[in-house]
Amino acid sequence: MSLPLFDRFLAPADAAAPFDDVALIQAMFDFEAALSRAQAAAGMIPAASAAAIASVCKAELYDLNALAEASSRAGSLAIPLVKELTQTVSLYSGEAASVVHKGSTSQDVQDTAMALCTRRAVDAIDTVLGRLIGSLLDLAERHADTPVLARTLMQPAQVTSFGLKVLNWTAPLVRSRARLREAAARGLALQLGGAIGTQSGLGTHAPAVVAHMAEALGLAVAPSPWHTQRDEWLRVAMEAAVLAGCLGKIGTDLALMAQAEVGELNEPAAPGRGGSSAMPHKRNPVGALAAVATAQRTPHRAAALLAAMGQQHERGLGTWQAELAEWPGLFIGVHASALALADVFIAPDVHPERMRANIDALNGLVFAEQASALLAPVIGKARAHSLLEQLSGDVVSQNKPLEALMLAAVQSDPALKKVDVAAVKRVFDPQVALAAARRQFDDRLPALRQPD
Amino acid sequence: MSLPLFDRFLAPADAAAPFDDVALIQAMFDFEAALSRAQAAAGMIPAASAAAIASVCKAELYDLNALAEASSRAGSLAIPLVKELTQTVSLYSGEAASVVHKGSTSQDVQDTAMALCTRRAVDAIDTVLGRLIGSLLDLAERHADTPVLARTLMQPAQVTSFGLKVLNWTAPLVRSRARLREAAARGLALQLGGAIGTQSGLGTHAPAVVAHMAEALGLAVAPSPWHTQRDEWLRVAMEAAVLAGCLGKIGTDLALMAQAEVGELNEPAAPGRGGSSAMPHKRNPVGALAAVATAQRTPHRAAALLAAMGQQHERGLGTWQAELAEWPGLFIGVHASALALADVFIAPDVHPERMRANIDALNGLVFAEQASALLAPVIGKARAHSLLEQLSGDVVSQNKPLEALMLAAVQSDPALKKVDVAAVKRVFDPQVALAAARRQFDDRLPALRQPD
Amino acid sequence: MSLPLFDRFLAPADAAAPFDDVALIQAMFDFEAALSRAQAAAGMIPAASAAAIASVCKAELYDLNALAEASSRAGSLAIPLVKELTQTVSLYSGEAASVVHKGSTSQDVQDTAMALCTRRAVDAIDTVLGRLIGSLLDLAERHADTPVLARTLMQPAQVTSFGLKVLNWTAPLVRSRARLREAAARGLALQLGGAIGTQSGLGTHAPAVVAHMAEALGLAVAPSPWHTQRDEWLRVAMEAAVLAGCLGKIGTDLALMAQAEVGELNEPAAPGRGGSSAMPHKRNPVGALAAVATAQRTPHRAAALLAAMGQQHERGLGTWQAELAEWPGLFIGVHASALALADVFIAPDVHPERMRANIDALNGLVFAEQASALLAPVIGKARAHSLLEQLSGDVVSQNKPLEALMLAAVQSDPALKKVDVAAVKRVFDPQVALAAARRQFDDRLPALRQPD
Amino acid sequence: MSLPLFDRFLAPADAAAPFDDVALIQAMFDFEAALSRAQAAAGMIPAASAAAIASVCKAELYDLNALAEASSRAGSLAIPLVKELTQTVSLYSGEAASVVHKGSTSQDVQDTAMALCTRRAVDAIDTVLGRLIGSLLDLAERHADTPVLARTLMQPAQVTSFGLKVLNWTAPLVRSRARLREAAARGLALQLGGAIGTQSGLGTHAPAVVAHMAEALGLAVAPSPWHTQRDEWLRVAMEAAVLAGCLGKIGTDLALMAQAEVGELNEPAAPGRGGSSAMPHKRNPVGALAAVATAQRTPHRAAALLAAMGQQHERGLGTWQAELAEWPGLFIGVHASALALADVFIAPDVHPERMRANIDALNGLVFAEQASALLAPVIGKARAHSLLEQLSGDVVSQNKPLEALMLAAVQSDPALKKVDVAAVKRVFDPQVALAAARRQFDDRLPALRQPD
Repeated sequence: MSLPLFDRFLAPADAAAPFDDVALIQAMFDFEAALSRAQAAAGMIPAASAAAIASVCKAELYDLNALAEASSRAGSLAIPLVKELTQTVSLYSGEAASVVHKGSTSQDVQDTAMALCTRRAVDAIDTVLGRLIGSLLDLAERHADTPVLARTLMQPAQVTSFGLKVLNWTAPLVRSRARLREAAARGLALQLGGAIGTQSGLGTHAPAVVAHMAEALGLAVAPSPWHTQRDEWLRVAMEAAVLAGCLGKIGTDLALMAQAEVGELNEPAAPGRGGSSAMPHKRNPVGALAAVATAQRTPHRAAALLAAMGQQHERGLGTWQAELAEWPGLFIGVHASALALADVFIAPDVHPERMRANIDALNGLVFAEQASALLAPVIGKARAHSLLEQLSGDVVSQNKPLEALMLAAVQSDPALKKVDVAAVKRVFDPQVALAAARRQFDDRLPALRQPD
Repeated sequence: MSLPLFDRFLAPADAAAPFDDVALIQAMFDFEAALSRAQAAAGMIPAASAAAIASVCKAELYDLNALAEASSRAGSLAIPLVKELTQTVSLYSGEAASVVHKGSTSQDVQDTAMALCTRRAVDAIDTVLGRLIGSLLDLAERHADTPVLARTLMQPAQVTSFGLKVLNWTAPLVRSRARLREAAARGLALQLGGAIGTQSGLGTHAPAVVAHMAEALGLAVAPSPWHTQRDEWLRVAMEAAVLAGCLGKIGTDLALMAQAEVGELNEPAAPGRGGSSAMPHKRNPVGALAAVATAQRTPHRAAALLAAMGQQHERGLGTWQAELAEWPGLFIGVHASALALADVFIAPDVHPERMRANIDALNGLVFAEQASALLAPVIGKARAHSLLEQLSGDVVSQNKPLEALMLAAVQSDPALKKVDVAAVKRVFDPQVALAAARRQFDDRLPALRQPD
Repeated sequence: MSLPLFDRFLAPADAAAPFDDVALIQAMFDFEAALSRAQAAAGMIPAASAAAIASVCKAELYDLNALAEASSRAGSLAIPLVKELTQTVSLYSGEAASVVHKGSTSQDVQDTAMALCTRRAVDAIDTVLGRLIGSLLDLAERHADTPVLARTLMQPAQVTSFGLKVLNWTAPLVRSRARLREAAARGLALQLGGAIGTQSGLGTHAPAVVAHMAEALGLAVAPSPWHTQRDEWLRVAMEAAVLAGCLGKIGTDLALMAQAEVGELNEPAAPGRGGSSAMPHKRNPVGALAAVATAQRTPHRAAALLAAMGQQHERGLGTWQAELAEWPGLFIGVHASALALADVFIAPDVHPERMRANIDALNGLVFAEQASALLAPVIGKARAHSLLEQLSGDVVSQNKPLEALMLAAVQSDPALKKVDVAAVKRVFDPQVALAAARRQFDDRLPALRQPD
Repeated sequence: MSLPLFDRFLAPADAAAPFDDVALIQAMFDFEAALSRAQAAAGMIPAASAAAIASVCKAELYDLNALAEASSRAGSLAIPLVKELTQTVSLYSGEAASVVHKGSTSQDVQDTAMALCTRRAVDAIDTVLGRLIGSLLDLAERHADTPVLARTLMQPAQVTSFGLKVLNWTAPLVRSRARLREAAARGLALQLGGAIGTQSGLGTHAPAVVAHMAEALGLAVAPSPWHTQRDEWLRVAMEAAVLAGCLGKIGTDLALMAQAEVGELNEPAAPGRGGSSAMPHKRNPVGALAAVATAQRTPHRAAALLAAMGQQHERGLGTWQAELAEWPGLFIGVHASALALADVFIAPDVHPERMRANIDALNGLVFAEQASALLAPVIGKARAHSLLEQLSGDVVSQNKPLEALMLAAVQSDPALKKVDVAAVKRVFDPQVALAAARRQFDDRLPALRQPD
């Protein structure tokens, strides 16, 4: 495993696997094997040479540490790899050795290998997202009629349903999943430009070789080599970055709802999960932690990738190499974040009674706007608003429910005698307050439930 | 004009205009007018009220400085604006005053206003891009057969055509233009959620009101209010950020080619353009400057926007407000960058003779790979490579052209007598080296020339 | 006022003032006046010329909009300014006009002007910090014995004092204030290098001119011109960025403590402060909002400044200009953040009773570690920990205080009979739990109370 | 080795070593050993217990992979480590096992371990910087009289000395080295706060234990635990980030000067250094590559660290963990950048003849300002400037040296007859133009040559 310790802490092995050293180097060999086979298919090289090359394109045959160490000095990972591969092939066939890496360049190998690893990461993220979305939609449906405080600027605002809140978490994931697929389908493309991107070493065989290789490797065919035109490639990363933000928002809300004083939603309890070395009673929200940490880190990686776009001329100096180094961490982080939340929402610990208690503790203040709207037709908007402000003050100073104070006002003030007492009671009923949330919930759920 | 001095230096008035204070505040009034009209159309409020409200939704009627100053304290720009609007309406109609801003919330006003301004910025960027792409494609066609050094890691590599180099600059702009349109068509949407995003103040009229307003304002209809679900909105900014990178890459190459020692491409000369207060002879590449500066700044704005995605619960604290403040600068920068390059490529100062001289100055070294490939069938790949390495050394130490040294070797070494002298000469002919570039150029041009 | 609307929303006029357009342009004129006077003092130019130049170095004499517009095209703000200044001087004295800007370059003017404006911003920030620190230390002293939950990973941990919590907020501000002074004393230096930084236009007068100007302008003397050596300059910005982080941490805690369910600390109430356009009962934490928003934005500006350090050769292309444009916003943000928190802590709304209630609501679980430590000497560490885990489970399932359950266990279990009942009671007394916090508080306060 | 492949490509083993997994975990054990010994010294625990604990605080006794895997689930690396350590100690002494990690918390272990690793990285960076500074000052002295073009906005400006240019690269390194030492001396401090930072588990022994541990571990004593007050810690990273920028600026200039068309400065040639898989003649500037890549990546890591400062309450959720994960890469990058440039400047390949040729190729245009200054006293500033503009145009259109054109003008125009021909010749002599550069060089060198 080739991730530093504190990265591993935030990313389980599954998330790191697609970009593991062995995986990356094998992907470079996969490129070389596919190149040879495609050139054989196109008649550029003998089939026997392709077979000889492909037969030793196996990472386990090589000393990966030696390759990594030689790369710094060479200024490229591909140079020592191609050298070792050529030497190995030459043990079996001089002719084959003479066509290793033919018409290709270092950047072709490295970019394609990174695309292959990213392809696997994106597919794995897609799968985890599918699972997480499923859990969230189930949770939303179970709580479509569970009232919960909506909070704006971190203060209680009005009442919504927990189901709609969960639906609001889910919709961006459904969109991100679709967009990430689209971006990957375009941006994860074979790189094959040769020394300067003109494919001069392939001659008129270029289109056939490209098509054959892309098909074999499961990558897209770009309209042209993209050595220093990184826009489509970057769009895949930008989609992953947006996804990290969507997951981070869920993590933020989860951490806030899991506070002891709020107590509305906790992560599942499990042995060894979220303990404390000093405090036996603690149950730390480690899923939220991972999602929030990734959302903290990802924007900066995204910026590093964008900043690397100014790749000079036909191959960048410092820019391209910075991009390659920043790239895997972004996907590993997003993957880890999705896995962490998927774990949480298999069995979230929901407390509808605390949701209700938090509403009730506000003594009806969150219904002040609706109460004002109820009185406006009777005494005018300005007087209604002013009366509610006064009653809201009384709620706090006297610690009495707004409903009771308002009913008292209605009964004592002749100007308010037209106000319907039953209507007042409905204003303060959290279940009644859910009507709008329910309407939206029912409208939106079907589109989110669509099959893959 | 409401941009700080050093931002104005980098952004001409055209780029800043869509987000000017007056434009933004008028857009907020446009929201209020459209809301009233839509509610009237839906039968929620009297048509006369809507007319009364709309008639005073004009920024010039209000003290914008006072609004701005009140906003900090209020924690919202919309609160003082709605207050002033209501007071103004009430001078004409108490009934109308009672339905100002009905069912809406601050964030609805501000997000929609920002979407309206962004709509205009994106349309303007689209227009400039169209112009820039046209200029670049014309330039590319004029130079499809002009040889120029391709450079990798900022060192000479091989020979390509200047036309293909320009085509490589252009293709990402064509893609970015299309993608920015798509992202804007989805992400620049009406915001109308009411206090907590449930549209509770609109009742069952919500869909009709939303549809009417979006149509009137020229914005998209989002699947739901997006107060704290910013993914589609962010995608518009991410597209703009990718575009900034594409433009910055052109600026980088331009600055490199404009160096006196390279001298291949200069910005057009014009009075007052790119001078120096101390040095009369200077002609600074101010177009490249603007594109590079924007490419330097934009990744960080993009990161700030991504980092703001963790908006808490139903309205963010600090996050949403940071996003709004960072947002305009990103689009202004991209707009300015596109304008600066469009200005450059109306009349770029191209020097094919310097391109050729820079190739010639390398004494044929950039053809060493092809020369090696020519010898390989005759003496084997390894010997060919080794011979070329030796000859390349001689080129430097003796300051003689590789072509001459190679012809001498061919004539003196019996092992090389099968090598065709005419073929050797072709290897060192820059025009011949263009063949692959020309092939790619011809393949790709038509798709980039597509009409809007 | 020259700040975009949503920046003004986050920054009051006081914070924006030091970098106002007029202030910046006047600072450029101040440079030119000081340059002339210093050259006169050094005998380089006639005193009368210096007087003539200085007499028209007044921003109000010029058309600032015209200057700003000419700057883009010129690639420099100083070029049109020097041109206008020279023309104006020439109305009075041809001789004086011939020595305007002598030996200087655009970057000298712009960098020095920015240093002057930053000097004022840093001084103003220092003053606000002094005020904020004073308020916080007073608050800390008032609450040195007020128990409050300490929270780790956003979960209740143990009990500390609110006074120590406030002291922990304050200490970084005291340090930041001192460090910002130090960094500013070095980094806010006169720039005077001439065309390429060699001061060739000043000849052997260079040291005298530099010393005179720096003294007159209140700036440091750098060891050499710093056109493309920005390290000391950047350190000032990095200090400001760290300060933004320190203030943001306070804002974060404040926002968390102000949540209705926590209710431990609120911002002061005042008319028009933190209301809602839709919800009359809301009191939004607008001070926390400003501090959090700045902490969100600042890291990205810091990154933009760091990324601009790679300034090419003797004057940067795109890099320097990006730095100048990003610079003011960083200081304006930090200034606004400090002002916002200073406003909050003039009269914070502290609720010790809610702090206590939040502790009590946990039924003694936050004392589990100490309870375990009490039992360990009697029954061993492992058994003590295991017993406490079991009792903690009972606290939750039976909703009973841990203290009662533990006393019952002590009384019923013979193995525990040596446990001192009074000691058990002390373990669960929040005031007793404060002892360590009090010790630290008393140790640290004096150093933080030091005079300026 | 625990760095991903493309990070290893940019960072040699020496740069990664201080933060290697084994090093980090051993540092955590070093904390535990030092804690026990300090507590024994303070009389808190038996000396035998401390000895028992310390004797098994050796990373090689544990399964590091298992620790890393358990950490994710636990939400902390320290929890599984302390558990394993306690179990191991208990094999030898139950009494010792009961005091493992006493009074400490996870964050104490992890922060201190990170400080220890950073201490080693900073010391190593200091050593490399010393070497690089030495090489650069030697180079500067060798070229104090070598004329080279100064370039502003990437265009030729005037003539400076290569020695002064190198001195300008060096001075920021000398400053950064000193500042990094200062920041590290304060910011690399022992962390020992216990569960909530009050050191409650240490009682009145706290100061003695802290002093003993800090001394033993070679770390600073902070004025207080800094669990969520990260300012001093961050300042160390900010210094490293500024240093990355200083090194990146050298890398940028190096890459520009190494361009074939400029050819003034190349990296040393060595077998396997900077080759190309496709192009045998290439010599890529791999040292510049590493410095530029680090300068590209570092600002974003710095931003991530700054953004993580808003650590909630007494231990951050997501923020602290993101900081730990981002931290090592910043120092590894800076270290690698310094190593790469130190390698380059052991034996840089300087071409004074190309420096001179590049000046000469400009036909004297870079002396236009001085030529204008020479004429000004004779014919006035305005006429002089206008004449030079005209002559500069002739230089380009006629491809003749400005010196010749000016001498011709002086001889033919009676108004210029007072102009001294010898003075004209001096204006165009690059060696004469060096006078100011030489003055500055001599003034500044001694301070930079100071011993460590």
